[in-house]
Amino acid sequence: MTIFKQLESNVRSYSNNFPVIFSSAKGCWLKTESGKKYLDFLSGAGSLNYGHNNSVLKKALVNYILEDGITHGLDMHTEAKADFLLALKTYIFEPRGLNYKVQFTGPTGANAVEAALKLARKVTGRSNIVAFTNGFHGCSLGALAATGNQHHRGGAGTPLTNITRIPYENYANNVDGLALFETMLSDSSSGLDKPAAVLLEVVQGEGGLNTASDKWLQRLEKICQKNKILIIVDDIQAGCGRTGSFFSFESSGITPDIVTLSKSISGYGLPMALVLLKPELDKWKPGEHNGTFRGNNHAFITATKTLETYWKNDLFEKSIKARSSQLHLAINRIATQYPDIFVGLKGRGLMKGIECKNGSTANKITQACFLMGMIIETAGPSDEIVKFFCPLTINESELNQGIKIFENAAFNVNQDIAKQNEMKKKEVA
Amino acid sequence: MTIFKQLESNVRSYSNNFPVIFSSAKGCWLKTESGKKYLDFLSGAGSLNYGHNNSVLKKALVNYILEDGITHGLDMHTEAKADFLLALKTYIFEPRGLNYKVQFTGPTGANAVEAALKLARKVTGRSNIVAFTNGFHGCSLGALAATGNQHHRGGAGTPLTNITRIPYENYANNVDGLALFETMLSDSSSGLDKPAAVLLEVVQGEGGLNTASDKWLQRLEKICQKNKILIIVDDIQAGCGRTGSFFSFESSGITPDIVTLSKSISGYGLPMALVLLKPELDKWKPGEHNGTFRGNNHAFITATKTLETYWKNDLFEKSIKARSSQLHLAINRIATQYPDIFVGLKGRGLMKGIECKNGSTANKITQACFLMGMIIETAGPSDEIVKFFCPLTINESELNQGIKIFENAAFNVNQDIAKQNEMKKKEVA
Amino acid sequence: MTIFKQLESNVRSYSNNFPVIFSSAKGCWLKTESGKKYLDFLSGAGSLNYGHNNSVLKKALVNYILEDGITHGLDMHTEAKADFLLALKTYIFEPRGLNYKVQFTGPTGANAVEAALKLARKVTGRSNIVAFTNGFHGCSLGALAATGNQHHRGGAGTPLTNITRIPYENYANNVDGLALFETMLSDSSSGLDKPAAVLLEVVQGEGGLNTASDKWLQRLEKICQKNKILIIVDDIQAGCGRTGSFFSFESSGITPDIVTLSKSISGYGLPMALVLLKPELDKWKPGEHNGTFRGNNHAFITATKTLETYWKNDLFEKSIKARSSQLHLAINRIATQYPDIFVGLKGRGLMKGIECKNGSTANKITQACFLMGMIIETAGPSDEIVKFFCPLTINESELNQGIKIFENAAFNVNQDIAKQNEMKKKEVA
Amino acid sequence: MTIFKQLESNVRSYSNNFPVIFSSAKGCWLKTESGKKYLDFLSGAGSLNYGHNNSVLKKALVNYILEDGITHGLDMHTEAKADFLLALKTYIFEPRGLNYKVQFTGPTGANAVEAALKLARKVTGRSNIVAFTNGFHGCSLGALAATGNQHHRGGAGTPLTNITRIPYENYANNVDGLALFETMLSDSSSGLDKPAAVLLEVVQGEGGLNTASDKWLQRLEKICQKNKILIIVDDIQAGCGRTGSFFSFESSGITPDIVTLSKSISGYGLPMALVLLKPELDKWKPGEHNGTFRGNNHAFITATKTLETYWKNDLFEKSIKARSSQLHLAINRIATQYPDIFVGLKGRGLMKGIECKNGSTANKITQACFLMGMIIETAGPSDEIVKFFCPLTINESELNQGIKIFENAAFNVNQDIAKQNEMKKKEVA
Repeated sequence: MTIFKQLESNVRSYSNNFPVIFSSAKGCWLKTESGKKYLDFLSGAGSLNYGHNNSVLKKALVNYILEDGITHGLDMHTEAKADFLLALKTYIFEPRGLNYKVQFTGPTGANAVEAALKLARKVTGRSNIVAFTNGFHGCSLGALAATGNQHHRGGAGTPLTNITRIPYENYANNVDGLALFETMLSDSSSGLDKPAAVLLEVVQGEGGLNTASDKWLQRLEKICQKNKILIIVDDIQAGCGRTGSFFSFESSGITPDIVTLSKSISGYGLPMALVLLKPELDKWKPGEHNGTFRGNNHAFITATKTLETYWKNDLFEKSIKARSSQLHLAINRIATQYPDIFVGLKGRGLMKGIECKNGSTANKITQACFLMGMIIETAGPSDEIVKFFCPLTINESELNQGIKIFENAAFNVNQDIAKQNEMKKKEVA
Repeated sequence: MTIFKQLESNVRSYSNNFPVIFSSAKGCWLKTESGKKYLDFLSGAGSLNYGHNNSVLKKALVNYILEDGITHGLDMHTEAKADFLLALKTYIFEPRGLNYKVQFTGPTGANAVEAALKLARKVTGRSNIVAFTNGFHGCSLGALAATGNQHHRGGAGTPLTNITRIPYENYANNVDGLALFETMLSDSSSGLDKPAAVLLEVVQGEGGLNTASDKWLQRLEKICQKNKILIIVDDIQAGCGRTGSFFSFESSGITPDIVTLSKSISGYGLPMALVLLKPELDKWKPGEHNGTFRGNNHAFITATKTLETYWKNDLFEKSIKARSSQLHLAINRIATQYPDIFVGLKGRGLMKGIECKNGSTANKITQACFLMGMIIETAGPSDEIVKFFCPLTINESELNQGIKIFENAAFNVNQDIAKQNEMKKKEVA
Repeated sequence: MTIFKQLESNVRSYSNNFPVIFSSAKGCWLKTESGKKYLDFLSGAGSLNYGHNNSVLKKALVNYILEDGITHGLDMHTEAKADFLLALKTYIFEPRGLNYKVQFTGPTGANAVEAALKLARKVTGRSNIVAFTNGFHGCSLGALAATGNQHHRGGAGTPLTNITRIPYENYANNVDGLALFETMLSDSSSGLDKPAAVLLEVVQGEGGLNTASDKWLQRLEKICQKNKILIIVDDIQAGCGRTGSFFSFESSGITPDIVTLSKSISGYGLPMALVLLKPELDKWKPGEHNGTFRGNNHAFITATKTLETYWKNDLFEKSIKARSSQLHLAINRIATQYPDIFVGLKGRGLMKGIECKNGSTANKITQACFLMGMIIETAGPSDEIVKFFCPLTINESELNQGIKIFENAAFNVNQDIAKQNEMKKKEVA
Repeated sequence: MTIFKQLESNVRSYSNNFPVIFSSAKGCWLKTESGKKYLDFLSGAGSLNYGHNNSVLKKALVNYILEDGITHGLDMHTEAKADFLLALKTYIFEPRGLNYKVQFTGPTGANAVEAALKLARKVTGRSNIVAFTNGFHGCSLGALAATGNQHHRGGAGTPLTNITRIPYENYANNVDGLALFETMLSDSSSGLDKPAAVLLEVVQGEGGLNTASDKWLQRLEKICQKNKILIIVDDIQAGCGRTGSFFSFESSGITPDIVTLSKSISGYGLPMALVLLKPELDKWKPGEHNGTFRGNNHAFITATKTLETYWKNDLFEKSIKARSSQLHLAINRIATQYPDIFVGLKGRGLMKGIECKNGSTANKITQACFLMGMIIETAGPSDEIVKFFCPLTINESELNQGIKIFENAAFNVNQDIAKQNEMKKKEVA
């Protein structure tokens, strides 16, 4: 453990909350070097939708490596890439009536967002981008400007520019952000420079599991179409099945002009990021946005396997919905049971959370869970939301184990807080 | 092949120059699906210093995967990370008298540069950064501002700010860039806002294999120390042995405040990026610069193996030097032989190139090489430099094969151009 | 007239609407070279609150010039400046319980705004500024960023940054802009970078004579005080008596941290601009914001006279209120009479206007007025508001003359539009 | 005097060096309220080229005011403006073969620079502007970005962007700035974003009286023409005869695309500023860059008189040259006489200075001059240059008086410094 303190920068964060050393993992389970097992309800912040070291993917990956399949090929053509593109077309685009071209960016979500913003600006000739309150899009300078989080913005060391922020659905006692947006667009002295694009998450991952309704998304699409503004859906966290369908926006019927994907797209936790773009937007010159690791061949192998295995029919979606309902019922019940510490439910599908009265309570709960063998994290502006991010492949019994641990944690924390409050009352008296 | 045209964005670039589909690779060799072999003098733009699918690394990686070692662990502690940090300390830092802390950023070089710039700005409270003519540092907005290449800058769609550009060594008929920099720093109405840091490559990879001499680097360090300006060496392409030593700056004796590493640090072509920072600069708050894929455990495994295998003694450095001399002698001879098409040599170690009269000639040569079974690329403002980027593990005979192909290409192109010139003369007559 | 077409840039604007050549002026009246008189309801866009060539001021100015009083003295001490400062203190600051220091900036409103923004940023160390929808603050780059008007913003040729725009009172179907502002300030991932200051007009001159209520201003002050954000009132157009009191914010009881004044502060139409700042904010270093014409001695002479003449007791305020009521009753009656072309009243005091159904109607009316001998202009995002900007010194009979001309214009335009509509109906039938 | 301390912001500067209260002025002379006279070698920082309250101009101005000539007319047509435009055409443009259109901006030099930069960006569609080391162009945000002075830049409170700085002639031990500029323009990875324009002073007023040679200007024009980059000459301080001809660039034969004028253009110290632009650049939309005080009618009256009186033949230029030579000989002699405190001469025409060994010496000299009845100031990065800025209308005897005072001051300061040095030596011994 000393080596981390000694050598690793203070920027490390999750390791502060979970101060053990992990050595292996399988499915929903993480194991430390001393053999202790933890149920993983964090799942690499949404990068492990198919669980750790998923056996189907693992087999394909090991075979590929053993056969000396191309590991690094810059953006040259490889068999692995061809197979992935074909699978994406066959299992994702065609069944959904989508017609996107695919850009492989540097293998981070932030890099996909950077590419999407550049493309939107380049294609429209406008520099302004509309982003939303509580949005999170990454930490490189272009993506960071669109990110709402002050903790991250503060690290920039220079003003973040060319972004206009509009209230997300249900923000600030239901200010109608879209009405505001539409008025500002039609008012020639509103001060809103006509944006190249709006950039949004359909469910805001880090921002607190806020959800955009289908109706709101449809209104937004209408406004954007009328004003020739592009829609970029950042589906890095909410995509790849997390909300119940492959893309988070499917139920709304909107068709974003650009979509960013990363996290679970490789399925195995391998770094990869994509930008999907309507063909008419593909105005890129060769190499105009480049990077050494765009297109990760190991990730192509595992990604292709996820598509073939989980997305060729609707069984996986049904299973996500079943687990979703199970989780919903359970945490709804628990939230109702402890009204002193919980406010209510947030999110959608298996991108769900429970809002605590404050960040301190949420933190107590996740720490209690950790002691009982579960990794679970918080989200939201004050880290006040406990986020249930189990693998989508979790089974009923494992999910119940997790719920149980959480319930015990809630019971304990509720009791502790009640005691403390009583103590305070006495002191006052 | 159709699938690429149909589905992949026009932003793809290398695949335009090498329109075949690769399926496997080993050492210096790439193999297409139809079984044709190509000698690789591009090496993933410097990401494959130890060759493709290096057997030692491969074995370690496959074992790790088979044992369900952690693949994705966010920035949590893992055994794989501990081992890597220890190896870095033992084989790299301690023998060189270096004392750095390590930040794992998103696994792209650009992300490491973004983190380095943020840190420099944050620590100094200054927003300006000095970058150099012909520097290349990546394509996300923060890194792109520091990048000189207009092709890439043009993609931003918004002005790139907070960078002052200073002439690199030997720029513009030997303008003394450091004298200019020093004068501007001491002149209170020069218009140079005191920078947080200077950001530089010791050998400029994409910018044309321009090299900074030890003396120039020492002068730069002196100026920066006097003015309390940080030095960031971007060793993403030139590091990991490419110039003959692990870091490109070792011979100069300077100690950068911050170093960025990526490309060959994993050794196997797996995405990873690091920022090395002096401990006193580690003012990061937890998670202030974050990202899903920071710290790639597969990459830790292979990276650790590279350090244990190649950097525990000086044998590998000696071998790089031997190949370096072999290459130098050969291309020097060829350059001298064809003065009509070549200008001279560029670069250092195995980061060497030959400058052609113009980009069109360089392109003819690389295309001729491709037809003869070698992948080799160009660099420089007009793509006028043919860049010999073979794996550092190449053996004498393989290097000779590459040189021979290049020599044949040079012979052919020289002849073609001579013929064309004669034709033109006749036409004029 | 040829000389203007030939030599003056196309940027000229008012002269397009009033294509005559003026030669002299007195009180409310402008006279052309051919002797035609025009009633002036534009008053130099609010720079001639005391009328043209006001006799009291004129006498003082001529005497000063005849005695070779200092005309240009940079920012050196002059008797004229001392007298002005003393008058400002005696007649304006002390009776209102205000305690400001005075900065003489370059003699344009925009320059005063530039200075105010710089000071706010410097003092707080924050770069963001909150400005409001439809705000107008000038055309130099810093002030322009805060200005909402797209026509002016479009001239920048470069993105305008470091401004967050918040909805003004009653904007966009009554979005509660202050609730939004307050929520964003308390939400650490709202994306609102804590601003140095809010910058606002109490009545928005160019933006359409929108008014902020006392209650709204009080709420804003409370929010700003709680969050240590400065309040800058841009009183360039609304100040110097235009709304009925010397400052536009007097009735609200708020005390801005910084106030900008220009336009009518000299009283004679001579260029001058001031920044009033709370003493504790006076962190300027000598000459840090400078300019050749800061502090115009001719303007000091006339400005001092306005203070001594009009602001030593409340007679002038009473007279403004009387004219205000007269105007209000009249245009209210006219607006009610022609509901097909008018929407309603805007503004406060003698900063009043009548909103037309659209900009084209407003333009027809002002053109009709011009033909009948009155100069009157429009304001608002679509130039849809006819703005009654007579001198504050106008007498009852002159004001009636103006109202009569306007009423005739309204009658004619209403009739014309009615006829056109009938014609259209017939065509359709 | 108390009123200034109490009420005027600390931003005041000249008044700190000359702590008296002035009441009247005539020609080269300033008079305090107590009757003490000062010879003015500062001339409103170049705004009083025709002396204080020049009798010819004064008469015209007083008559105009007495006849109720338009004082403030926004940008409407007035007789005064027509007369000025005609005089400008007749006496300035036509004799020099120039064909400019005239834009009246807000009456500050900074505002003219803002307009020039906006126009260049708008016309070319490029946001970058090249400015030079030691350039001074004003303090509003757009102009300030182009200004080199750190004291002023520091007041911005936000990064200053979209400017690339190139070394001026003879900068930094003769770095060839134009060679650097040309190389960077032709190098596609230099990092120089192609600029809309270069902005320069032919003699740098505040920056230290550095001069650009005719040859250097011609080279610059050639580079700009080849690359379709506009040339903007900021002639605010060096124009209106200061360097010996009306424009500072006349001897070089270059024709700037845009010229900014202010300071002495009114001749009487009244605020006014102009942008001269080639007709083909006049892409302004009406009112796109506006402001309340653009076009100052009082200034038109006096400006017209200066053109009619001083520029209808070459007598005035000859007289400037005579005074120039007189001054040159004298300060050259003095500089040679006191080599311990003086470095040499700077500047051109009556825009001349003497460089002292350091700012402290220069300050001692100007303070000594003040005590002997002369107002004279410093310039340069360290305020190390004593700047002789007498009115251009000064006569031989008055100029001699000034030289004499300066010579006495030099004698005293030289003696004092010699004594101090002797004292120090003794102490050491």
